[in-house]
Amino acid sequence: MTPSAYDRLTERFRRLNALTGSRGVLGWDMATMMPDGGAEARAEQLEVLTMLGHGLLTAPEVSEWLAEAESAPPDDPWDTANLREMRRAHLHATCVDENLVGALSRATSRCEMRWRAARPDNDFQGLLPSLDEVLRLTREVAEHRAAVLGCSAYEALMDEYEPGAREETIDALFDDLAGWLPNTVDRIVEKQEQQESILPIPGPFPQAKQEALCRRLLGLVGFDFAHGRLDTSHHPFCGGVPDDVRITTRYREDDFVQSVMGVLHECGHALYERGLPAPWRSQPVGGARGMALHESQSLLIEMQACRSPEFISCLAPLVREAFDGDGPEWSEANLRRIYGHVQRSLIRVDADEVTYPAHVILRYRLERALIRGDLQLADLPGAWADGLDALLGIRPPDDRQGCLQDIHWPSGGWGYFPTYTLGALAAAQLFERACADRPDIPSELGRGDFRGLLGWLRTHVHQRASFTSTDEVLRDATGSALATTAFKAHVERRYLVR
Amino acid sequence: MTPSAYDRLTERFRRLNALTGSRGVLGWDMATMMPDGGAEARAEQLEVLTMLGHGLLTAPEVSEWLAEAESAPPDDPWDTANLREMRRAHLHATCVDENLVGALSRATSRCEMRWRAARPDNDFQGLLPSLDEVLRLTREVAEHRAAVLGCSAYEALMDEYEPGAREETIDALFDDLAGWLPNTVDRIVEKQEQQESILPIPGPFPQAKQEALCRRLLGLVGFDFAHGRLDTSHHPFCGGVPDDVRITTRYREDDFVQSVMGVLHECGHALYERGLPAPWRSQPVGGARGMALHESQSLLIEMQACRSPEFISCLAPLVREAFDGDGPEWSEANLRRIYGHVQRSLIRVDADEVTYPAHVILRYRLERALIRGDLQLADLPGAWADGLDALLGIRPPDDRQGCLQDIHWPSGGWGYFPTYTLGALAAAQLFERACADRPDIPSELGRGDFRGLLGWLRTHVHQRASFTSTDEVLRDATGSALATTAFKAHVERRYLVR
Repeated sequence: MTPSAYDRLTERFRRLNALTGSRGVLGWDMATMMPDGGAEARAEQLEVLTMLGHGLLTAPEVSEWLAEAESAPPDDPWDTANLREMRRAHLHATCVDENLVGALSRATSRCEMRWRAARPDNDFQGLLPSLDEVLRLTREVAEHRAAVLGCSAYEALMDEYEPGAREETIDALFDDLAGWLPNTVDRIVEKQEQQESILPIPGPFPQAKQEALCRRLLGLVGFDFAHGRLDTSHHPFCGGVPDDVRITTRYREDDFVQSVMGVLHECGHALYERGLPAPWRSQPVGGARGMALHESQSLLIEMQACRSPEFISCLAPLVREAFDGDGPEWSEANLRRIYGHVQRSLIRVDADEVTYPAHVILRYRLERALIRGDLQLADLPGAWADGLDALLGIRPPDDRQGCLQDIHWPSGGWGYFPTYTLGALAAAQLFERACADRPDIPSELGRGDFRGLLGWLRTHVHQRASFTSTDEVLRDATGSALATTAFKAHVERRYLVR
Repeated sequence: MTPSAYDRLTERFRRLNALTGSRGVLGWDMATMMPDGGAEARAEQLEVLTMLGHGLLTAPEVSEWLAEAESAPPDDPWDTANLREMRRAHLHATCVDENLVGALSRATSRCEMRWRAARPDNDFQGLLPSLDEVLRLTREVAEHRAAVLGCSAYEALMDEYEPGAREETIDALFDDLAGWLPNTVDRIVEKQEQQESILPIPGPFPQAKQEALCRRLLGLVGFDFAHGRLDTSHHPFCGGVPDDVRITTRYREDDFVQSVMGVLHECGHALYERGLPAPWRSQPVGGARGMALHESQSLLIEMQACRSPEFISCLAPLVREAFDGDGPEWSEANLRRIYGHVQRSLIRVDADEVTYPAHVILRYRLERALIRGDLQLADLPGAWADGLDALLGIRPPDDRQGCLQDIHWPSGGWGYFPTYTLGALAAAQLFERACADRPDIPSELGRGDFRGLLGWLRTHVHQRASFTSTDEVLRDATGSALATTAFKAHVERRYLVR
């Protein structure tokens, strides 16, 4: 029997998925295991796998199969959704001229390298020419893609990370947050100033002990070591494939606070990947929905669950045991203060969950203005300082702590920033609903029992994969579209009520 | 300017090389890092990469480019040799019908699985049907390939591992060895019986200490950790790519003897890979010549250099230091007896360098007879016992210690066995010549200085890659074709003269 066009497509996407998975493992190896001398050969391997994948996806027969399959769509709704995701992947791969893609890729390589020198040197002027080239080509790509997708240029950029993201929706959410934030931060900082101050916990904390603690916590949260690993890398990440999820962290021997929460954050990403529906492993519909939901899962585990007072009551004795800690600085109350500290700061990656949205809203507004042409790159440092001032009441003393701090723009990641805060909002909304559906969750977390929460996430988020839009996942799970309500209520409850 | 047919071929083979390298790293990861739950996804990744590679190599345009390039060959002799190797790779990939290849692949998977159960159960009869199917299909493949290559069916099988291997040559070498072996083994065993007996070294030897010793030894021999790693796996191997060579070993806490020599053996393979000419990294002519030369490099490092009395005088104090050893069992003389012990034994992988060729010659004769149809599989156990008796004067008490011991035949590795002994002969011949060219080598090894030896190997073996045949590499390096002379002289010198 001749296979149908849709059958041919599923086989083609199975191969693409194997290529993507291979790249995932090779990328993980590059960050964790590879000796420096292997870099050139690895770059070539990754380049060739990417090129072959692009070729498989954009081959002429794929257009024909798609058209044929769409003319007589499959019956099963998951197959239908799969076909829709195939079309989406094909559209993204074909809507921009390959020469332009190549030019942008070369420009971002140059610019990222330039940025690595410019940031420590605080040299925004030195970065400007190469960043300008990246911006110019990114706008060109965005306009091509927007014409095909039928959206704005900036939306077309976001679409790669968060399918269907719309400026209007995000504006409403972010404007609301931006109006609420300054006063809220004031009140929290004021309240914290009146409370007992944080007692520093004296180190050192040997890496082996930190790692043992992290593994124990991963076990509690539900990370499956038969289908994953924990390793060390310079930048923490979650990689691999759903049946073999590789998470990493970094350790500082003078501080365990970051590594522990970093691992739990990555664990949230890993649980999402691991929970994607097994029968659809190799197909587009079986993949994670987008970066907003992905980030919602890491933030839900880290911010909502693991920084909750309930879980910290379970964490404190484990931490004491791990490092033979004794004394008031090791108390549950002190650990809660450490993990719940809020302060205005200049660096996004060091920000707490309350001030983090300010950093994201700033970048969202600036990058959109740059893409639209409403802001010139030369004016970025001033616009950055003014914007941060309006949101957090502070100004960076230099560009290193201002518009040079992130790798995203030099490396071509335009339209990515909003997903961090969309994820934080979704995390609060999902966690609120999970606790409403299953009121025992907080007390279960207090006993280190994540099974109830994980079960809820499996059903309402992970198993949905890319079957529907992010918005539909949220509506089905929580009864309403993404909103700021739950996040604001969470912040009030955690930082102001207690 | 339009690229020439040869340029197109080099680009095609660059991609193939990146795919092979990717598979190398994924295979290494599978054996060293991958959690069990990742097996299915990994098998799919490897299958797809293999399939894509096969597709790239057998695509119709490759035939056209080859014909066109051969009609006006490149000027540079390395390019000419590269084109020859491209043709060879293409021939091997296309000369057998894909359905037959698929059938053999499925049959070997089944048979290998069956063998894993049959060996511990000593159940040759149970293995017979699936092994018979493997043999039948292997013969069919061999006959197809032989017709294209213009050689015997068995030579066509060997050709995959050792290009150009001829039965006539191997017969001459192996018959000579077989005639010399029984009496030589008798004399060595008799001599050793008259010597002081081996003092067992009491353990345990913690894995971390064994590994630290192995790393120190690798550093001495010239393993470059900026371009490679040492890890642990169930079966030791050398994988990865030339710029990132991954070797593995296994540790037993009651014995360091095996792990140390195992690592040095794999290091010999790694040095060969690492020493291949950098400008030809991605091309067929830049690859290792074949398994005989590959094995010659591991055996040269392990057997010729590292088990030499000179190196053992350097090794003994390092071993004592590694394990805080003290007493007569830790002496240089005892270590020399341990690493130079010869005995008739049933299991190939445990055999010493003197009796090892008997195991190989036995298998060579048997597998050739099976391929030719001169021997029926049902008669294998008896033929095995008779053959071993003739060569070593011992008979296996059961098939588990006889014809069921090796994975090669069930897994489809017919024609591989001879390369072990061809490699041992080449190792002796190359080492003898290296020491003649550079008489300081033995005393350098006594000081743990491998630079002189490695430099000689780089020039005379590694840098030659696949530019010429194995035979020409040997002739150019040593002045004569592969012979038994150096090996026999080495055995006499090491085991009988002292």
